[in-house]
Order: sequence, then structure tokens, then C-alpha cells
Amino acid sequence: MKVVLSVGGSLLNPGQPDFAFIRELASLLRKLKSKYHLAVVCGGGMPAREHAASIRKLGGSEFLADETAVLCTRSNAMFLIAALGEDAYPLVAKNFKEAAAAMDSGRIVLMGGTIPGITTDTDAALLAELIGAARIVNLSNVDGIYTADPRKDKGAKKFSSMSFSQLVQLASQHDERKAGTRFVFDIIACKLIARSRIETHFVYGKEIHQVQNAIEGKKHAGTIVK
Amino acid sequence: MKVVLSVGGSLLNPGQPDFAFIRELASLLRKLKSKYHLAVVCGGGMPAREHAASIRKLGGSEFLADETAVLCTRSNAMFLIAALGEDAYPLVAKNFKEAAAAMDSGRIVLMGGTIPGITTDTDAALLAELIGAARIVNLSNVDGIYTADPRKDKGAKKFSSMSFSQLVQLASQHDERKAGTRFVFDIIACKLIARSRIETHFVYGKEIHQVQNAIEGKKHAGTIVK
Amino acid sequence: MKVVLSVGGSLLNPGQPDFAFIRELASLLRKLKSKYHLAVVCGGGMPAREHAASIRKLGGSEFLADETAVLCTRSNAMFLIAALGEDAYPLVAKNFKEAAAAMDSGRIVLMGGTIPGITTDTDAALLAELIGAARIVNLSNVDGIYTADPRKDKGAKKFSSMSFSQLVQLASQHDERKAGTRFVFDIIACKLIARSRIETHFVYGKEIHQVQNAIEGKKHAGTIVK
Amino acid sequence: MKVVLSVGGSLLNPGQPDFAFIRELASLLRKLKSKYHLAVVCGGGMPAREHAASIRKLGGSEFLADETAVLCTRSNAMFLIAALGEDAYPLVAKNFKEAAAAMDSGRIVLMGGTIPGITTDTDAALLAELIGAARIVNLSNVDGIYTADPRKDKGAKKFSSMSFSQLVQLASQHDERKAGTRFVFDIIACKLIARSRIETHFVYGKEIHQVQNAIEGKKHAGTIVK
Amino acid sequence: MKVVLSVGGSLLNPGQPDFAFIRELASLLRKLKSKYHLAVVCGGGMPAREHAASIRKLGGSEFLADETAVLCTRSNAMFLIAALGEDAYPLVAKNFKEAAAAMDSGRIVLMGGTIPGITTDTDAALLAELIGAARIVNLSNVDGIYTADPRKDKGAKKFSSMSFSQLVQLASQHDERKAGTRFVFDIIACKLIARSRIETHFVYGKEIHQVQNAIEGKKHAGTIVK
Amino acid sequence: MKVVLSVGGSLLNPGQPDFAFIRELASLLRKLKSKYHLAVVCGGGMPAREHAASIRKLGGSEFLADETAVLCTRSNAMFLIAALGEDAYPLVAKNFKEAAAAMDSGRIVLMGGTIPGITTDTDAALLAELIGAARIVNLSNVDGIYTADPRKDKGAKKFSSMSFSQLVQLASQHDERKAGTRFVFDIIACKLIARSRIETHFVYGKEIHQVQNAIEGKKHAGTIVK
Repeated sequence: MKVVLSVGGSLLNPGQPDFAFIRELASLLRKLKSKYHLAVVCGGGMPAREHAASIRKLGGSEFLADETAVLCTRSNAMFLIAALGEDAYPLVAKNFKEAAAAMDSGRIVLMGGTIPGITTDTDAALLAELIGAARIVNLSNVDGIYTADPRKDKGAKKFSSMSFSQLVQLASQHDERKAGTRFVFDIIACKLIARSRIETHFVYGKEIHQVQNAIEGKKHAGTIVK
Repeated sequence: MKVVLSVGGSLLNPGQPDFAFIRELASLLRKLKSKYHLAVVCGGGMPAREHAASIRKLGGSEFLADETAVLCTRSNAMFLIAALGEDAYPLVAKNFKEAAAAMDSGRIVLMGGTIPGITTDTDAALLAELIGAARIVNLSNVDGIYTADPRKDKGAKKFSSMSFSQLVQLASQHDERKAGTRFVFDIIACKLIARSRIETHFVYGKEIHQVQNAIEGKKHAGTIVK
Repeated sequence: MKVVLSVGGSLLNPGQPDFAFIRELASLLRKLKSKYHLAVVCGGGMPAREHAASIRKLGGSEFLADETAVLCTRSNAMFLIAALGEDAYPLVAKNFKEAAAAMDSGRIVLMGGTIPGITTDTDAALLAELIGAARIVNLSNVDGIYTADPRKDKGAKKFSSMSFSQLVQLASQHDERKAGTRFVFDIIACKLIARSRIETHFVYGKEIHQVQNAIEGKKHAGTIVK
Repeated sequence: MKVVLSVGGSLLNPGQPDFAFIRELASLLRKLKSKYHLAVVCGGGMPAREHAASIRKLGGSEFLADETAVLCTRSNAMFLIAALGEDAYPLVAKNFKEAAAAMDSGRIVLMGGTIPGITTDTDAALLAELIGAARIVNLSNVDGIYTADPRKDKGAKKFSSMSFSQLVQLASQHDERKAGTRFVFDIIACKLIARSRIETHFVYGKEIHQVQNAIEGKKHAGTIVK
Repeated sequence: MKVVLSVGGSLLNPGQPDFAFIRELASLLRKLKSKYHLAVVCGGGMPAREHAASIRKLGGSEFLADETAVLCTRSNAMFLIAALGEDAYPLVAKNFKEAAAAMDSGRIVLMGGTIPGITTDTDAALLAELIGAARIVNLSNVDGIYTADPRKDKGAKKFSSMSFSQLVQLASQHDERKAGTRFVFDIIACKLIARSRIETHFVYGKEIHQVQNAIEGKKHAGTIVK
Repeated sequence: MKVVLSVGGSLLNPGQPDFAFIRELASLLRKLKSKYHLAVVCGGGMPAREHAASIRKLGGSEFLADETAVLCTRSNAMFLIAALGEDAYPLVAKNFKEAAAAMDSGRIVLMGGTIPGITTDTDAALLAELIGAARIVNLSNVDGIYTADPRKDKGAKKFSSMSFSQLVQLASQHDERKAGTRFVFDIIACKLIARSRIETHFVYGKEIHQVQNAIEGKKHAGTIVK
């Protein structure tokens, strides 16, 4: 059974690589790899936002800003490869073709961003479609999907489960197409999982036990969209 | 001065290639090529929708459905290359890198879709960002942007001009991420031109004089977003 | 044991995809996949001929006409991937290197055309050489090789078996290097199987039981060249 | 005006590179480069035949034999690049896409073989189609096309000009699809120039004045097919 | 006249991009671009060293450490593209083939690292060989080549000029093949410029007037190797 | 357990392919392939030196000279593929990404050179780093590492084992960066195995029993660096 993880860049790299988190996640993936065929799409985090800001400051295009952000997602994927050692395919997949080919190695496949204008959440959704993943697990620094942004609205309530169309509606209000904006899940990604009806789990990445439950399709403290 | 055209697939190929339209568009582009450095992104039209439907009928993934649709966009781009002859770069650009390289030939560059999940309108917006286009001209089978879909709502009013944020708001309600859905302009494309503030013209493609005015940045019967 | 199938485009796509045939063929391949390692090269059929004709009508080169035809072969390969689901490598191989790599997935590998000027029969023969296939099975809409074209010459007699040199001689008279010409087997393909002495079976594709026999190297109603 | 040269490997490399010929040809091309936009496809010659024979001796496939032969064609192309210096595009084009892109450099473009099963004459014909060459000049070690092989048949008569269909008929009898067979012009190449009606000149490569006349479309001692 | 610049990463990015330096360098390159055809190879600087260290800390291979460092060199190249705007080829060349092709655009070409194990100084030397550059200008944070490391040895004396063999001898003692080691010029790079006898100038990058003199082949405060 | 072999070109191809050696080596590799996962990097030998010399003679760059030499390494790799038949991955890996992907086939992977300026010994060291090889075995025409070149200095003494730093020191004196120079082990390769502490065995390639011992990590007549 194939599972795609979309790991928020802010978990992997909030300025510097979070070595403890990277190692803990690697341990979990290694433990589960005999039962699940895993592909992991890594976000860019703070470095991606900073690189993109530098490009803009120098007068570069948004396309170029996104391209530097993509490089940061690949660095993060490499950190996870380093921690996974032999259990990871040794090179970051740069596009869907490379990812699909790497899956045949039987190892854990790491991917970052692909092209400008597209978030790594969208990449994860497209990869899940391509390889026929049973589910997507989204690891971010919030513990599920709320009726509003819980960092701003104290009264926001977390969904334990929701439908694809509910998700799409929530997501529609936020997207801004700049490298490094942080949201629960990109609207395009939402629409992709909705069109293909791919069960998607949203969990707080730092609670590694929740992540495990989500990968295994068990009950967890986050939100399940199906 | 660089101008990117996004040509709706339904204009190029409403089932069969529309030879008259293709030739007329080619004539216009040839006429303008000494003044403007042109890149043309072609949509898939009816064949793209039919191919995607066939894939779904056979049980294939949405990713695969999109991939067949991309092939149709490239066929349409080839028809335009055929009509342009020596004035076109002789091969369809398959990604942004190839398109940027082909621009250095000084010839008209043709492109279709790139990856699944992304419309050719989005490709056009990304290409415009990359090459620093002065404006985008969107050719479709409606004559501008309306307050509502003019095919369904008789009271819909056409904008002669509108702001980027107005456009983004209108577009937010429609997108569905399936190959071949036809809308004025994909929401991601809208957000991309908004983030980069690329002046974009929406014209009815069959009124070739309007298209010329739009390419030249002159007044026309369609809608200007800036 | 590796077997390469060359499937005539007219079987897969006589204008529209032949869903019944595609599903039936997929069923057979799925049934045989544990015993044979299969690669399938798909032809372009009617759409390829029509696309090529459109290119010519618009003044495009024969090279470009062939390129559109190649896109049609890839669409047909995607239809078969859709029908095969998990049993197929999920992406169409675009060249021999990709096909050889995809073979290592253990799944059924789908390929269309490669470069202009070369038929998919030739691609099938080259692929068979590269991967060391035990035999090629050619599925077309005729039920074997005749002394003359059975559609034109009522007195034509079918060979149950023939030598490589007999095949080469017969094929020499027909080839025309235009996308979409339909012949039993391209002359270059004939010469390739002759130089490598690859046993090749010609069967009527719609008689799926004959196809099975041919794949398994058993007696069938078509023609065996060896 | 674009002209494609197909230079026989036996001229460039009859065992060792023929430095005198390579330099003389380079001088001519340099002299003509301001008037003609030149692409040169190089054959493999003796080394190609020897490499292919070694592969066969070791039990390798014909596909692999052809691949080694392709490497030899690229070595020969590099020798010509070396002799042309700044006037050549500095890298050998490995496929038609690279060749078309390199043409935009304005420099002389060098190419060798592309894929197994295809001769460099065929590559030259395809390239001529793609770039819309006005003519092809074939340089070999015979001084034109004869009614029979002049090395074997003393009564063979040289054509000063002939039609495409005459050429196709003559060529049909010889082709064998083994790397390094030496013929006037590969049958597929003949059919390609016939389908696209590309004027083709056959001259003895060592008579450099004849080569110049052929490139310039003037009368020469060889054979013109048109 | 072609000139290759090798710009030390510590100049471009001593932790954060040095916006002032990047802009100043961009101004100079823009000013000189009509007289010199420029290619710029960017080093990785502090981020490259930090990324490589993170990979090692997580147990990753030196190969992977180098790969992350290469990503940092490309980020730095993108910062320079951003500052150069229209005057730069809009995408970073990832290998020599891409760089050679981008040179034909007539614009300033940016490149970072290529493969693990190879410094950007070596990349600059190889690129200079490939495109036939008249000279290389090495910008670093030391103002020339000394008899010993001037940061450690107060008595070190600067060469105003030296021979290739002198340079090779000096360089032989230092190289360590880890991403991010900082030396005047990598030993392999030294040997490459020696074998091709490419005049190479070493200047303190921050003294932009010295850099200009070096690019123009005029006298400057650094070291000339020839 | 993965083992990388670096096979000297002079063993594989001292002017002509050494069929006896190639077959003997292929036999050994085939015998060991169930116990060791093998990758073999082939050198260029005499043909590489001759090709490079021809390029120089014609006025070509050292870059181009290296490129022809790389083609020769790939020819040699193909000869070994031919001899290995089904046990080899059927195509030569052209870069590290292709080699890593081919390793997942479970077959013996063949590689030649990668880019100019880099020896195949260095390629072998980089590949060993990437795939995490347990050891490298270097096959050359000398039977180990000596205190001096045994062909020139009769008093040279062979090391049975030595440290990485001893190796690096010895190697530092020789490297010249010209295609086809023959040394025990390229200095960069030495530094790479030192930085990654990859146990490396140097054996006389023609004593196939010594080669087997080295692959198996057993005692042999050559030199072990660790």
C-alpha cells in the first residue's frame, strides 16, 4: 500500500534544519517501510521564504523567486535522505517521472517542489494520483483543519473529519501563489484530492505517534478528509 | 517587447483543427513578429476533453487523463507551427526551460501544457513571468470577462477593464482541476498575473482585429486586467 | 521470458478508442503477466493519419506530421495503461532508455513511437533487440501474412510460417515513410528481426485467443516468422 | 539558405581520422558559412564497423552494436568540430531537438547518429525535413549514383540526375540494417527525401571542388536527385 | 571576446546574500556586456558549507553533502540573475551543454556547480575550455595569490604574475575535496587552465574597479597567471 | 553488499578490445553477482588517448579531447555489457543519476566517464559514495601501489596496505588532467575515498583470482587502502 507524505517545510527547516524532527520522522518511516511504500514530498520552510524574498529584493521575477524556493525544498529532502540512509532512494526526484521510477526501487522516495507556481502540497497530490496512493498524510505545524486559522481566531474549531467539498470551500479563500506562504493545504492540492477522492490526513507533524496513526489509516487527533 | 498569447483550445480545435482560424492567427502573428517577440501557449480543446474522458472511462487516473490532454495541447501547437512555417521555432517547447531557450531563436515560440493539474492559462502566466513579457493576450471563445457566465446569465455585463484583485475574486468560484474544463481564465493563472502585475487582455479569438489590438496594447472590445 | 507486442493503431483507435478491444487486451496481458515480462508498443491508428494530414494541409513538414502521429501513439499507449491499472508502469516510455528502465519495475511497459521516420513496428523490433525479447507478437487487423494484400487480392494465400528472408523480400515492395501508412510490418522492422533472428508472430488482434497463443509461443491461426 | 551535409564515415575515418580530408572539408565549410547555414551529419566509417563487430563477437545484441557505432559517428563529428574551431557549435547534437536548437547559434552544427537501426543518411534526411533545408549534399567515396555498384560492375553507368522514385527503386535492393554497411544512400533516407522532395546531391567527398558546387547548387560531376 | 568569471561564494553569500556586492557586480557586468561575452560561475559560500555540514551530521554521504552545496551555488547564481534582469539568461545553466547553448542568447550566462567532487573553480575552467574563453577572472575575498596563506602567514608575499606551473605547484598542497573548503583556486582548476593555457586573473572581488580591469585584461592589483 | 570496480582502460582496450580479458572478467562478475551488487566503471585506454590526441592535432580544445575520451570509455563499457549479456543492465549509465537508478535493477551496472576534466577513477569514487559501496576495487596493469613507479624505478616497493593519507600524498605528485594519462589512481579519486573512508583495493587486473579476492574483501597480492 502506497502512502504519500507532504511534510511542511516549517517542520523540517524553521531557519536551520530541525535535526531532532528529521531524525524522529526518519525513524518512523524506517519502521513503517516494510508495510507501506512511502513517498515523501518536502516543503521549503523559512529558507524558501527568505530566498524568495531576496530574489524580489534584487528585482527578480516571481518565477525566479519560486525557483529558489524549489531548491530549498530539495535541500530539505536531502536532509531526510541523509537521515534515512540505505532506506531512502539516494537522489531527490525532480519531477513525477523520476519519482515514479524511483518507487520501483522499493525504497522510500523523496521529492521536493517541481515547477514555479505550484506548492509542494500540490506536488504531493499529483504524485498520489500518479502512483495510485491509498492516502496522503499532511504534516504541518497545526494539528488539523479548523473552521478558521487557530493562530488568529481563538474560537476556531478543529474538524475530526470532513468531506472533500468542505475542504475545497475552506481552502478557496486563502491561496496567494507566492513561494513560502503557509497554509493548511493549497487550494489546488485540495481540488486534486477531491477530483481523485484521495483520503487525506492532516496531523501535527511533531506528534510522531499521530503521524504514525495517520500513515496506518488509524484514528488520530488531526483531521481526515474523505 | 515580449507578448505571450494563451490561445483557447476550443478556438484551435473544436473536434477537428479549425484550419481557417489557425491560418488567420498565423497570418496575424507573422505580420506582428518584427515588432513583438511572441510566445504562444495552446490549449487542448475538445480533443483534450475527449481523451481525458476516455482515460477515465477505462479506469485511468486523473493524472493520466491530464497527460493525454497535454498531448492534445501539443498537437494544437504543432498545427500552428505548421501554419507559421519558417517564422516559428520548429519544435513545441515542452517546459519553461525549452521555451526560454527557444525565445533566443528570435522566432515565434509555441508551447502546450506542461504538467498535470496545471492549465495552459497557468503555463502562459508562468512563461510570461519567466521571460518578462510586457503583456498576456488571452484568446477564447468569449469576448471578455463578464460579471457572470454570459452563456448562462443573460444579464451578465462585460468589463472593459478591471483590477487584478477583481479578477482573482471572480475566478475563485469556478476552478475544478479537470482536464478540459473551460473557463475564462484559471484561478491560479489569475493569481500569478496578479502577483507579478502582468497586464492581461481577454479577447474573442475569432475577431482577429481585436486580437491584433490586444497584442499591440491598443483599445479593443474585450477586457483589460491591470 | 520477455515478449514484445506491437499493437496496430487501427485496433486500438479506429477514430475513437476501441474500449472493448482495449479492455480485452488488457485482461489478457494481466492474465499472462506472471509468466511473461511484457512490453507493448502501440501504433497511432486513424488519429495519427488524420493529424499528419492536418499538418500537411497547413503546410507543415513531414517531420512535423510524424511528430503529431507520435503523440497519437502515446495517447493510445495511455489508454492501455488506464485499462491495465496497477499492472502497467504508469508512464509511457518515450525512448528505449526509458523502456529498458521501466522493464525493471516488473510491470507491463507501454511505449508508443520514438522519432519521426520510424514506425512503431520498428520501435518494437529495436526494443526487442535491446531487452533480449524471446519473441515479438504483431497484432494487426489482418490475420497473418499473405502472398499479397488480402484486402485487394482475393487469391492471396496466408503463410503459416515463413523465413526471415521471405519476410524481408515481401516487405521491400511497400514501405512509403508516411505517418499512418498501414502495412503488415514495416520493412525496416522486418530487416531488424531478420538481423537478430527474433521469432515474430503475426495475428489478427481481435481474436484474443490467437493473441494469447502467439504470446505463449503456441500454434495459432496467424503467421510465424523464424 | 540551409544545407545539410551527410558525410560518409569512410571519408572521415578510414581506420584513423583522415586529418587532411577533415581539414580540407573544414576549410570549405568555413568559406561557405556566411552564405549557407550548414548542418553536417557524420557517419561512423571503419571504426563503427569494427566496434559493432566486437560487440557481436562478445555476444552483444545488434542494438548494442549500433549504439557503439553511434559513438563512433560522434567522435567523427568532434574531429570536425575541432577543425572548425569557433565556426562550429561546440558540442555534437545528439538528437534532432538539440540540432534544431544549435542551428539558432548561427554556427555550423555537427551531428552524428541518433538511435540504433537508423543510418546517419536517414538522420540527415530527417534533419533536413525538420529545419527545412533547401538541399542535402551526400559526400561518400563514390562519385555519384550508378546503375549498379561501380566497384563490382565495370559496366555501371553514373546518373547525372535522376528522379526521387528512380532513387528509391535502386536503393530498395541493398539495405541490411547492420551498423557500418556501406551504400550510396540508405533506403529509408531515400524514401524520406522523396516524400519531402528534398533536392539531394551525391558527390565524391575527396573532390572538394565538387562538394562546393553541390553545396551551392551548381553543376558538378556527381548525381543530382530531384 | 569571451570571459569567464568564477565568483567566490563567500563574496556572494557570507551567510545571507550580500545585496550590495551582488548589485555592484551586476552593474559592472551590465556595463561591460557589450564588449565582452560573459559567463559567470558562482560559488556556494557559507550556506554551502552549512548545508554540507548538516548532511554529514545526519549521517548522509559526502556525495549528498556536495549535492546540497551545488544547490546553494545555484541559489547564488539566481540572485545574480535577479540583479541582472534582462541582461542575464533567465535560467541557471546546470551543466556545460546548457551553458554553451545559453551563450548563444548573447546574454550573460550564469552557472553554479555541476557534479559532486568538483568545485565551481573547476567548472569555470572547464566552461572556459569549452567556449574558448580568452581569460578567466577569479573573484575571491583575497586580493591575489600569495607565497603562503596571507590570513595565516604575515610574511606571505603576493605575486603580480606567475606561470601556470608555479600555480599548479602552489595549489597541490591544499585541496581536500569537501564541499565548501575555501582556497585560492582548486588544484584541478589550476591544472585545467595550465593544460589549456588560459590566462587567469585573481582579484579581490569587493574592489570592483580591479575586477573591471581584470575582465578587460588591464593591469590590476591582483595576480595574473599566464 | 555493493562493490564498485574501476577497470583500467588499458586492460579493456590496449588498442583493440582485449576479448580474452573482457570475457574472463565477465565470467568472474557473473559468478559473484548473487553475493555482491556490482557497479563497474570502465576507463578509456589507448583509444581514448589516441582520440584525444587527434582532437588536439586538429586544433580542438582539451574539453573536446576529453569528450572524445569519454566516448571511448562508454564503448569499453558496452563491450563488457555484451560479454555479460542478461546479467548486465543493458545500457551504459551516463551519469550518477542513471547509475543509481540502474542499480535498482539488481543487475551489474556499467558506467564510463561522465564529464571532461574528471577521470573514471574519480567517477568510480563518486559512484561509491553515492550508492554507499562497501569497497572499491581498482583493476589496472600494475599489481598494486608502489613507493615509486615500478616501470621506471627498479627499487620501488609495493605496499600491501596503506592509509588514506599515505595514498593521497603519493598521488599528489602525478596528476596532469589530460585524457588518457595513466596512473595508479587519480589524486581527486584518492581524496574522495579518503574523505569518505572507502576501503579500496588495487590489483593487477589480469590476475583474475586476485580480483576475486579483492571483490570479496579477502587477502590478495595487491594493495589495500583503508
